[in-house]
Amino acid sequence: MEPTGLWQATTGVLESIATGAGILGTGGGGNPYIGQLRARQAIEKHGPVTVLSPEELPDDARVICVGGIGAPTVGIEKVRDLQSLYALRAIEDYTGERATALISNEIGGSNSVEPLIPAAIAGLPVVDADGMGRAFPEFQMKTFFVYGVPCCPMAIADEKGNSIIIRETVTPEWAERLARAATIQMGCVACYAVAPMTAEQVRRTAVPNTLSLARDLGDAVQHARDTGTDPLEAILSTCPGRILFTGKVVDLDRRTTAGFARGAVAIDGLDAFNGSRMDIDFQNENLIARLDGEIVCTVPDLICAVSTDTGEPVTTELMRYGLRVTILAFPAPALWTTPEGLAASGPRHFGYDTDYRPLQV
Amino acid sequence: MEPTGLWQATTGVLESIATGAGILGTGGGGNPYIGQLRARQAIEKHGPVTVLSPEELPDDARVICVGGIGAPTVGIEKVRDLQSLYALRAIEDYTGERATALISNEIGGSNSVEPLIPAAIAGLPVVDADGMGRAFPEFQMKTFFVYGVPCCPMAIADEKGNSIIIRETVTPEWAERLARAATIQMGCVACYAVAPMTAEQVRRTAVPNTLSLARDLGDAVQHARDTGTDPLEAILSTCPGRILFTGKVVDLDRRTTAGFARGAVAIDGLDAFNGSRMDIDFQNENLIARLDGEIVCTVPDLICAVSTDTGEPVTTELMRYGLRVTILAFPAPALWTTPEGLAASGPRHFGYDTDYRPLQV
Repeated sequence: MEPTGLWQATTGVLESIATGAGILGTGGGGNPYIGQLRARQAIEKHGPVTVLSPEELPDDARVICVGGIGAPTVGIEKVRDLQSLYALRAIEDYTGERATALISNEIGGSNSVEPLIPAAIAGLPVVDADGMGRAFPEFQMKTFFVYGVPCCPMAIADEKGNSIIIRETVTPEWAERLARAATIQMGCVACYAVAPMTAEQVRRTAVPNTLSLARDLGDAVQHARDTGTDPLEAILSTCPGRILFTGKVVDLDRRTTAGFARGAVAIDGLDAFNGSRMDIDFQNENLIARLDGEIVCTVPDLICAVSTDTGEPVTTELMRYGLRVTILAFPAPALWTTPEGLAASGPRHFGYDTDYRPLQV
Repeated sequence: MEPTGLWQATTGVLESIATGAGILGTGGGGNPYIGQLRARQAIEKHGPVTVLSPEELPDDARVICVGGIGAPTVGIEKVRDLQSLYALRAIEDYTGERATALISNEIGGSNSVEPLIPAAIAGLPVVDADGMGRAFPEFQMKTFFVYGVPCCPMAIADEKGNSIIIRETVTPEWAERLARAATIQMGCVACYAVAPMTAEQVRRTAVPNTLSLARDLGDAVQHARDTGTDPLEAILSTCPGRILFTGKVVDLDRRTTAGFARGAVAIDGLDAFNGSRMDIDFQNENLIARLDGEIVCTVPDLICAVSTDTGEPVTTELMRYGLRVTILAFPAPALWTTPEGLAASGPRHFGYDTDYRPLQV
């Protein structure tokens, strides 16, 4: 029996997914609006994409994770075109296996919709799950790999016709190094596809229901806008979390180095936070938030900047002086808060001399 | 019938090959003495390697080109170990074809003996030919590729267990870019193996008899040393060329950047050249020689520094202030002096606004 699917990713839901993925992207993951425009073109031309829950996957499914890699600051200038389809075909050729479904590597940012493009073109379903439940800057930071799915072989392709296979690496960090080096040569934006996972691997290691969550978050923001109600409340009633800070951006240091957008943003408090200041460090994604110098939230918990008025996500590359933003925080998916998960995603992984303390919601 | 081979590469000929390959390396190609030590270990353990002329190759031969890539300044510090064997196995796995013979990518420097290591271990012959007849800094600068052999797929491997396949590129220059980027990540020294060539491709596109030439040059230098005769004369009677300059190194600018050793050396004249000065620019290899400001020799002709007293080659990374050196020049192999050959290897390829003028011998 063919799976009927949870729901259909039509052009009508793309804007909601993009908004929700922008929030879950914690500043990074690539600009979701540009990703959404590209997915729209593919779905308009080839038809909607069936979204399957992990449980609906046939046991013999071959699920290929596709995603973009690079600096989001460049991603807004340089279009990915059919990179993810090329990467998919490259890893299929290499492994001699065809995908029966695709899965997003990260629900945050444009990577949430990246699989919809090759899925629409190839007529494949996508899984309602991803490898992060948020966004993270490095390729190997996926729950798949933390829980034993091999990260190689993987393919990387650009839009020009160049493709490589990372065949074997001694650690997942080596896959990141080699992938990043190729991506920089390819113009700081490329797509990858990892060798197929089994249904069991997806069910055990993916963060579930995240494409639905992104859609629901976006729906909530749109509904608040349409009804003139509070978008922040709409977000928090869809995804449990809390407001960390509200204020105005007063300082921004952002560099694109070694294939990443790195820097820090400073926000002066408004309303209830008048007289306080929040500083957020980012590496593509927001890593750590300090309130008047005290750490109040760290990775892997989600630190998300949204426009205070509209609830629309403010990504790292769109952050600018004077913006009125609210910083929301959400607890990390449970797969990240185990000892293995924290070793790969906690503040010490990013060089901070502090332990992870779970966000109190 | 099994080919009997031109000669056997035993440990006894390695020193001669290393000396000759050092001369033909025009400053680069990696330190031949270190390559020779590694080849010695492999041949001692696994036995000598049969050297075949291109004509002796069976018509159904599958010939894999293996070589090292990186900065020779790093190559003298970081040993390649079994990188070339790993690269060979990676491309064999990728293509599903086994090599029946190996060929050197460049006869200059350590790449002359690099194929002997996997050849000894795997029990394969090597072809008495290479893809340059000298050394060149960039991966794609091989007569194979100039005359239509595809440069992809190719494998790159390090000694740690990382390997990638460059599957497809829009131009050979893209293969160089991606290979170089991976090599830099791998510690600036790695080995590669290109998908198998046919016997016809080798006969048509390789520079022939160069392993024999390297051995004969080294024999000539050793013989001169043993008999107290003039090593420069011994070299020039083995390989037609001429003395460009004799002098003392008075200035050296050498940087290791973007995976290359780049710079320039200045030499003050001695003996017949007293009062004159020679300046040589290099990018791993010597590119252009100026006598008192006038260009007297350019790539693809060979510009080779040897010790004036001993005839031993002086490679880029061993060049130092105060050395007494003689600069020899040899005409480029004919495959490089066609319009296609010059487009890939002439002075304009390296950014010099000058045409190639053949060396007068």
